[in-house]
Amino acid sequence: MPARIDALPTPALLVDVAALDHNLAEMARALPGARLRPHVKATKCTALARRQRELGHHAFTCATLREMEGLAAAGLGEDLLLANEVLDARRLGALDARVSVAVDSEATVQAAAAGGVREVLIDVNVGLPRCGCAPEEAGRLAERARQLGLTVRGVMGYEGHAMAVAAREERARLTRASMELLERAHQDVGGEVISAGGTGSFDLNTLATEIQAGSYTLMDGAYAKQGLPFRQALWVQARVISVSADYAVADCGLKALGMDHGNPEIEGARVWFCSDEHITFSSEPLPRVGDGVRVWPAHVDPTVAYHERFQLVAGDEVLESWPIDLRGW
Amino acid sequence: MPARIDALPTPALLVDVAALDHNLAEMARALPGARLRPHVKATKCTALARRQRELGHHAFTCATLREMEGLAAAGLGEDLLLANEVLDARRLGALDARVSVAVDSEATVQAAAAGGVREVLIDVNVGLPRCGCAPEEAGRLAERARQLGLTVRGVMGYEGHAMAVAAREERARLTRASMELLERAHQDVGGEVISAGGTGSFDLNTLATEIQAGSYTLMDGAYAKQGLPFRQALWVQARVISVSADYAVADCGLKALGMDHGNPEIEGARVWFCSDEHITFSSEPLPRVGDGVRVWPAHVDPTVAYHERFQLVAGDEVLESWPIDLRGW
Repeated sequence: MPARIDALPTPALLVDVAALDHNLAEMARALPGARLRPHVKATKCTALARRQRELGHHAFTCATLREMEGLAAAGLGEDLLLANEVLDARRLGALDARVSVAVDSEATVQAAAAGGVREVLIDVNVGLPRCGCAPEEAGRLAERARQLGLTVRGVMGYEGHAMAVAAREERARLTRASMELLERAHQDVGGEVISAGGTGSFDLNTLATEIQAGSYTLMDGAYAKQGLPFRQALWVQARVISVSADYAVADCGLKALGMDHGNPEIEGARVWFCSDEHITFSSEPLPRVGDGVRVWPAHVDPTVAYHERFQLVAGDEVLESWPIDLRGW
Repeated sequence: MPARIDALPTPALLVDVAALDHNLAEMARALPGARLRPHVKATKCTALARRQRELGHHAFTCATLREMEGLAAAGLGEDLLLANEVLDARRLGALDARVSVAVDSEATVQAAAAGGVREVLIDVNVGLPRCGCAPEEAGRLAERARQLGLTVRGVMGYEGHAMAVAAREERARLTRASMELLERAHQDVGGEVISAGGTGSFDLNTLATEIQAGSYTLMDGAYAKQGLPFRQALWVQARVISVSADYAVADCGLKALGMDHGNPEIEGARVWFCSDEHITFSSEPLPRVGDGVRVWPAHVDPTVAYHERFQLVAGDEVLESWPIDLRGW
């Protein structure tokens, strides 16, 4: 007999199976097979990646060495991209997997070669002040990589500054401007791959040969405001542990939540603040001690990174539990 | 030969041994032995708790069941307090340790008794809108606990709303007002224990028989502004992975940092923003790719909870590594 949600120790990280399945299917329909290179940073879970593999996406995007190692160890290493720069690539070179890594400087090209990595993407800055070489330097860097014996598969450029813009038209405009820069760089670099995009631009980015989306699986408060065809699938299940005259307290605090986008939401309630292990909120009427509460995180990625397991649920039942096994570095 | 800091994979959580030792010694001098009941929530590390035990503090404060279980399993269960309410106390009742738990309602008193816990503190609301019964209800609740066969050791009340106030006089005034409420409740409840306070009030709270401080061990940006006799001992060691015309990027992002108090600091630099695995910053001059960077978190507690280990360092050398083994719930 499956366990019930109210028997779980709290706080617990819950995933609505129907919403997750909807999101996975919707994306696989929009961007089938290699058109999507799922980013695992939002979910950090090989069981979920395996589900994406079964839907036809055989290549994955990672943000950390640990994510790369975990996917390879799980037999999901057909085509792994570390979409981030590293100065010591030996752990990548040691993997039993097809490995590509982003490079944006002489030092990172040298590190890739020295670490035994064979394939790279030239990471191009398309407007977000983060990694990536200037578009006009991409060709020179590709040449340098080839001199060192590396295969240059193409370019990568993340329009992250467009991703958080709620208005679709403005998001589309920023994405187009970014991709014009990436297209120019690609002409100089060559290669088959133009890797870019994310959940916020999955149907706006028409240049990329593959989209690096990950948040679409679970969604969150920020993405929910964009009118995307994906559903919020993840919340933290908490329990009311104390009720006072005009507020209540549940056992889900800021150590169970990514807080960089602000406070989480509780339906029908006003969240006052979060402490380490508490959330104080008011509602009309107030709940009772022992009641279950759904706490919806403002930002999914750093929320997931605090938890050891996803509990997959349908209605009140816990169907399955997936380890969040790609955490850390 | 000890490892060097620049050989560590980044991001890594570093603790300056000299600063830690200073903080531990300073607190043990100010609040010797049982006058301090160290709170482990900030550090989540049995090796650090053992160091505190060696300095004479035999009783500990916890925020979660996992912290209680971990200390008990490590042989540090002489006198453990869960300073938080639980509705299912069976995991506490099963511990091989002296266990006390905070209660603030009929339901939590019943849960303690049903779970096999023997001793409780009446948790009293002293001004922070969180757990704790109204002061005037404390006596009735103690009576109810005794009816159910529980030993009431005394009261607990956390003046958390005073803790973050930078100005010492105002912090002292709020602490006094809170402790007047707790003293009144204690008269109704009885028992030997008045448990309260934290790092911000360790030398201001004159009522408490024991102070529940934890952050003093490592300190952070917020507490550093209070002029306390403790030193910032913890930072995240990162590495510059990309440098552009007017900014640089290091590999320490918001999944390696508690962000509820805002951005971390980098000495001599201006932090622009944090992404999942990146921090973008500017400085004059800019660093070079590969340079080490110290990132000082604004809030230590949720930062520690993201990491698997502390690396204890002196100068450039890594002396020891302590697992952060009390994470999760």
